[in-house]
Formats: sequence, C-alpha cells, structure tokens
Amino acid sequence: MSPQEARARAAPGTATVPLRVGLLGLGTVGGGVVELLHRNGELLLRRSGRPVQLVCVSARDATKPRALSLDGLEFVPEARRLVERPDLDVVLELIGGLEPAETLVRAALASGKHVVTANKALLAARGGELLALARQNGVRLAFEAAVCGGMPLIKLLREGLAGNRLESIIGIVNGTCNYILSAMEEQGTDFAEVLKAARAQGYTEADPTADIQGLDAAQKLAVLATLGFGLPLRDDKVHTEGIAEVESVDLRYARELGYRLRHLAIARRRPEGIELRTHPALLPEQHPLADTHGAMNAVLLRGDAAGPILLRGAGAGASPTASAVLADLGDLAATVPHGHPEAPLDATDPPRVLTATETLSAYYLRMQVEDRPGVLAGISGILSEAGISIEAVSQKEPLQGERHATILFITREVPEQHMDAARARLVKLPILHGAVTWLRLLHTD
Amino acid sequence: MSPQEARARAAPGTATVPLRVGLLGLGTVGGGVVELLHRNGELLLRRSGRPVQLVCVSARDATKPRALSLDGLEFVPEARRLVERPDLDVVLELIGGLEPAETLVRAALASGKHVVTANKALLAARGGELLALARQNGVRLAFEAAVCGGMPLIKLLREGLAGNRLESIIGIVNGTCNYILSAMEEQGTDFAEVLKAARAQGYTEADPTADIQGLDAAQKLAVLATLGFGLPLRDDKVHTEGIAEVESVDLRYARELGYRLRHLAIARRRPEGIELRTHPALLPEQHPLADTHGAMNAVLLRGDAAGPILLRGAGAGASPTASAVLADLGDLAATVPHGHPEAPLDATDPPRVLTATETLSAYYLRMQVEDRPGVLAGISGILSEAGISIEAVSQKEPLQGERHATILFITREVPEQHMDAARARLVKLPILHGAVTWLRLLHTD
Repeated sequence: MSPQEARARAAPGTATVPLRVGLLGLGTVGGGVVELLHRNGELLLRRSGRPVQLVCVSARDATKPRALSLDGLEFVPEARRLVERPDLDVVLELIGGLEPAETLVRAALASGKHVVTANKALLAARGGELLALARQNGVRLAFEAAVCGGMPLIKLLREGLAGNRLESIIGIVNGTCNYILSAMEEQGTDFAEVLKAARAQGYTEADPTADIQGLDAAQKLAVLATLGFGLPLRDDKVHTEGIAEVESVDLRYARELGYRLRHLAIARRRPEGIELRTHPALLPEQHPLADTHGAMNAVLLRGDAAGPILLRGAGAGASPTASAVLADLGDLAATVPHGHPEAPLDATDPPRVLTATETLSAYYLRMQVEDRPGVLAGISGILSEAGISIEAVSQKEPLQGERHATILFITREVPEQHMDAARARLVKLPILHGAVTWLRLLHTD
Repeated sequence: MSPQEARARAAPGTATVPLRVGLLGLGTVGGGVVELLHRNGELLLRRSGRPVQLVCVSARDATKPRALSLDGLEFVPEARRLVERPDLDVVLELIGGLEPAETLVRAALASGKHVVTANKALLAARGGELLALARQNGVRLAFEAAVCGGMPLIKLLREGLAGNRLESIIGIVNGTCNYILSAMEEQGTDFAEVLKAARAQGYTEADPTADIQGLDAAQKLAVLATLGFGLPLRDDKVHTEGIAEVESVDLRYARELGYRLRHLAIARRRPEGIELRTHPALLPEQHPLADTHGAMNAVLLRGDAAGPILLRGAGAGASPTASAVLADLGDLAATVPHGHPEAPLDATDPPRVLTATETLSAYYLRMQVEDRPGVLAGISGILSEAGISIEAVSQKEPLQGERHATILFITREVPEQHMDAARARLVKLPILHGAVTWLRLLHTD
C-alpha cells in the first residue's frame, strides 16, 4: 500500500499515532508552550491531522514551584536522559544559549529525533553544522520561534516565497531597540534616560547589551539571510551597530524633515554581493516600516515575483513564541511520515454565522439639518433611546447662502439592528434635510 | 527501510524523481507560472528538495501566438485528456470560473492527482465538496493563489497560526475597490468618474461588477473564514456590500475627522457566533490597515497566542499569483511521499557578503557651523568631490545668543566609503563647531 493509499484509507478522525514530544526548559517560553498545547491542542490536531502529545519535560529545578500544571507530564531530572529516550519523535529545546543546549540538540538529532528550537544564538553560531547533522540523520531542525516570535516569518520566507529570487529583507527585528527609539521620539528624552526607565519597568532583558548593541538583530538577520539568499548560517559576517549613540535631537530633526529613526536589519542583493548589516537608519514616514511602534517587529521582504510583502507582529513574549513553536510542531505532525489522513478544513461542529443585523459596528453619520436650536438634542435623543453612545460630534457651519448645516456623528460600537432602528426614526425628523448618510467605522483595536 | 532512513541515506543533491505537473490554462496567470518556473525552478528545487517538472499544458487555442516559450512542453488539445494522464502527480488549474474548471478538477482529484488552483469562485461555490473529494482520494487541493495573490495568506493562516484560536480576520482583499476609494480620496472625484477612468486605463477587469459589489471580497472571505474558524466553505453566508454608493464628500469628512474609508472583509469571533461581512468602513488613520493604498491588499489577523499579525502585499497580477502557485508546488514537492533528502538551506555556491564600506546608503548629516557666508558652499563642495549628491538641505537659524547655526543634509544613496572619506574632510573644516552627526537613511523603495 502506497503512502497515498494509506492516507486515503484512513478515515478522517481515525485515531492515529501521536507525535511524541519531549520538552527541555520550563522558563517563560517553555511554560507558554505547555499552556498553549493544553489550550489549543485540539485546534492543532484539526489543522495538522495528527495529535501532538507532550510526553515528558526536563528543567533545571524539579522542585521549583510553578504556576503551571504539569499533570500527566513525566519529569525527567537529567536532560541528557530525555534526549536519549527511544519513545520520542521530537525534542523541543527551549533552554536558550550555547551550552548545554548545543550538546543536547546534537544528541537529539544524532539519535534520529526532530528538533524544534527557539534558540537564535545557537542557530547563529552553530546553525550550519546542526542543519547538516539533521540532514545526515534524516530529521528536521525547525526554528520558527527563533526569529521574531509570533510572526511566521521563517515559514513565509522558506515556503511562502519558495518560488522567488529574493531581492531584499529589511526589518525591525529587535523590540527593545524599537521600544527605546519610539520612547525617545515620543518623549524627547535621551537614550540613557529611556533605557534606565525601561529597565526599571522590566521592559528589557536583565542584561540588554545584546539588544542595544545590535547583536540580537544580527543573529536574527543571519538566519533570515540564509533562508533568503542561501548564505552560510553565521552572524559574524553581519556589520553590526547598536543604538547607544543615537541622540534625541536627531529624532526631532528627522521628524521635522518627514522621517522616523528605526534600528534596522538589512540583507539586500546587489550585483556585487549581499549587503548584510544592522544599524539605526532614518525612514521616510510613509515607508511601510516607519509605522512600527514600541516592541513590535516588522519585516519587509521583496521577491522578484511576489513583489514587496510586509509582515508585522509581536516579536517576542511567551504567547507569541509559543504560537511559533506550535506551528513547527503542527508541521511535523502533518508531514512526518506516518499514515495520517489529510485534515478536513471545517470543524465538525463549526460556530454559527451571525446575521448582518447581529454584527457590531461603530458608525459615522452625516446629516444636513436646519440650523436652529434643539437640533442636536433631537438627534442625540434618538440615538440614546436606541442604546447608541456617541463618541464625537462635529457640526459644520452652513456655507454662505445655505440654510442647512452639516452635522457628523461618530458612535461607539453597537449591534447593527440598533442603528437600523435609530436611522428609521432619524429620517422622519422634520429638521432633517435629505438622507442620513452612514458608514461603518472600525476602531484601532 | 523506514521513510526516515530512506531520506537519511539519499545524499543531498542526489537526482530524485521530479514532481510531474500538467497545466490547464495559458492566460495571464498560466503564462506567469510557465515563465517563473523557467526562471526560478532551480531555487524552488533548492528549497523543496525535489524538482518540479512542467510536463504538459492544455489551453483553449493551441495556435494562438504567445509571447511565451513553450519549448519542451507537450501541448494536449483536450483538457480532459490531460487530467486523465497517468504520468502526472499534479494538475494545475488556472482556467478560472465554474465550468469546465469544476469538472476537470473533480476528474483530476478522482484519479488521485493533487490539484493546485487559483480559482476562488470555484472554491467559494464548491470548495467543501472538492476538499472532501481530495481527502477521499488521499490527495491535496492547494489554493494559495486563490486569495490575495502574492501574499502567503493561506499558509500563514493554515500553518503559521495553526496553534492559535483565531479571534478575527480583517482585510482589504479587493484591489479594485481599494484603488477606486484611494483615487476618490486623493482626487476628491466621485465614484462613477473614478471607475470610468480606471476602466479606460485598464486598471479594472473588463466587467468590474464582482469587484465593486463586494462579491470577489466575499468569496475570498469565505475561504479565509473556513481556515480561520472552521466554517463550511460557502460565500452565501457573507453579508456583502459594495462601494458604488460611497460619496467622495464622506471621504473628505472622514479625513478631516482622522479616518480613512476602505472596503473591508471581516470575520470576527463573538460569543454568539462569527461575524462575516464585507462592506466599506471608516478606519482611524493610525489603524494598521488604513495605510493601504492603490491596488495593494492587507490583512490583519488576530490569534489568541500570536496576537495581531499584519500581512500586506500585492493581491493580484501575473507574477504575484505565479509566486503563490510555485509555493504550493514547492510544498507538494517537499512533502508528497517520495524518498527525497531534506534540502540544505545554504546554496552550494552562495553569493558574496559585502563589507560594510561597500554597502550603499543615503545619509542624514547634522553639523553646527559658524553663521557666515560660504559655509554651505564649503560643505557642498566636499560632498560633491566625494561623489555624494544632496537631496535636501535645511538650515536652522541660530538660537538667540548663539553664534552657531545648525545645518542638516539629506543625501542620495552612496557607497559607505565615499561618505567615510567626505566625513574625514568635513571634520577638518574650520567653520565646523563640534562633530558631524550622521545617520543612514532608507528611501521608500
């Protein structure tokens, strides 16, 4: 029976062999993964067609009290023992740093296990060798979580743009740098002052040196440049500058001239070779990356066929990083050889689709009204009786020679049927001249 | 020998069985795919580990003169014959519309072939049945190209966010609507006028009805909502409104109030069910979607773990759509059972990494200078002699009581070493007070 036949014959929903995962590290990201697998494991199964089962875990201190429930999870005191277990398909490395992570990842790959890692430092330093080791052992080394957390950037670059000759990767890939530059810009304060406040409020790593010197961005860029341009995976070829020298006066001048200052990671194809650099740079305010604030990450990719593609999202944090880890686990579950059926796209018990009148919207309303007292009270009364809150009103003076004034309302979000009811009453108002023009409005969230 | 062992033993670069593809349709997108496979087939092989071979093609008129070279491609006069050939792994359906596309796709799936399609109308009308047919036959129906062209949105939603419970999908998914609304906003002209001009210039489909009535957006939303929320794939549940009633006066008022008007497709989870609607709506100008101009597409996804993710790119056109088709072909090549080795990430002959001094940048320069004649000429002369063109100069008057004026330059792009040379000369200028502050600057392109 061919694998295709095997898949065809296994009916959807048939219990299949789960993908068995062992977890190394129970820090912020490790805890986030345990929690997310618990919460969304069923969704992941629906999308990948094969269950992902977290079997065992190893962490430095077994006795440390954790908010997390580890019920049903075997605790393996020695990490080395975990990677050698014959009953695991995947080792999930969430320890970070070079050692012991490197030794453990090598042992896992050498014993024929797939490895999923969020460790960009390890990739930037040893990625080439580790990928070769994975190839030799016929397994995969997956690392979506290592670059820009919740944004599926590795997948986009590696698979989504697989048919493109990449021209450039330009990104804001370090949240700490972006947070500091955004704060300097908004508050007009100097680098040292903003950094001090950010550290005091826990917005930076305990030691933010790698972030502010651009080393973290250089590691991420090294990984991206390997995928995009086929460069060997190493970060020592990246020209690296940080943000410690940036003066707030230049952020102000830049703004006056129509620019924003951001810390960028750039890999760009030139006829002579590939530019590979990370440093602060001005961007025109209409540049797709200029509008990236606080700790957000954003990357602009340019392929010869797809054209420019912008991806923006959370670059770090337990949940976004766990989201990336689950994507890698789901890919392994979906594609690692095992006779599992193609997953159906729609849920067996899909949610209900609301009718148009049940949907929620804020609204913009425009009316021509007679310019006399009581008009605003009349309209506001109708809106209020329909349960509609007003966020803003703007009355335009009548143009010379006209008797009617234009009045604009912005409402808060209401069920569409409330607005329908209010409009039916508004159009009957004697002070109204013409129709009630309305448009839905979406708030920023 | 297990599949893992098989992969382990096949050395990288070993010739493997190609993925054999038959193409239906040689219109704009079909031609784009032939051209892109020819140009970037080697790249696709490197990324997916297995060659994709376009074997044969069928189109309505074999004799039609085409700009395209079809050398080495067998022409199959009858489409039905092509889908029944036993020597194909994949049928690529780029005909569009319901018939004969549906019959051909059904025949291909029933005969155990994977299908890659760009046909959103077919998916929105028959997607559920076709996906079930694919499952029954143990094959895949891939459709990255059907929604938002060059943006890998299907992959992102289906795989990248596989571990997320989706909260909302909000997108600008119809380029024609966005082009028309952008033009109305910028020119202050009315809908009918802009549409007429757009048609005359070939910026719309010959019959733009499906676009401007919101039907095209509704079809795309139906596909996205199935992936995101597990809804059965059908577009008749989408509340659909177009843009024909939008008045340019409201675009102006919206702008005055700090909003932009866009045609949106919205799928949003509420406790009661899923909102599914497409209609024009105002967005605050700082909303991530508000900055989407012309024929661009943009989609904001919100997952419970990943948080908000923005993806923006070309929504249509031959090249971006071909890019999406190649991504689907690459996925099939990489994952359809066949003993192929994991592809190495770095190229066998990677390009050279440029040194920092070889990189190109535009620059921002800030200097404090004595406020006397000849200063500007002195600085400009040095820049000019270093081969540096000036894009803008801005001189700030000295503050009261100060003897020095601040002068700012924005330069065009130059090799970094030219700027290093110019800076070395600038700092020696006697009229200079203090250092030359410099920052790199990135232009919009």
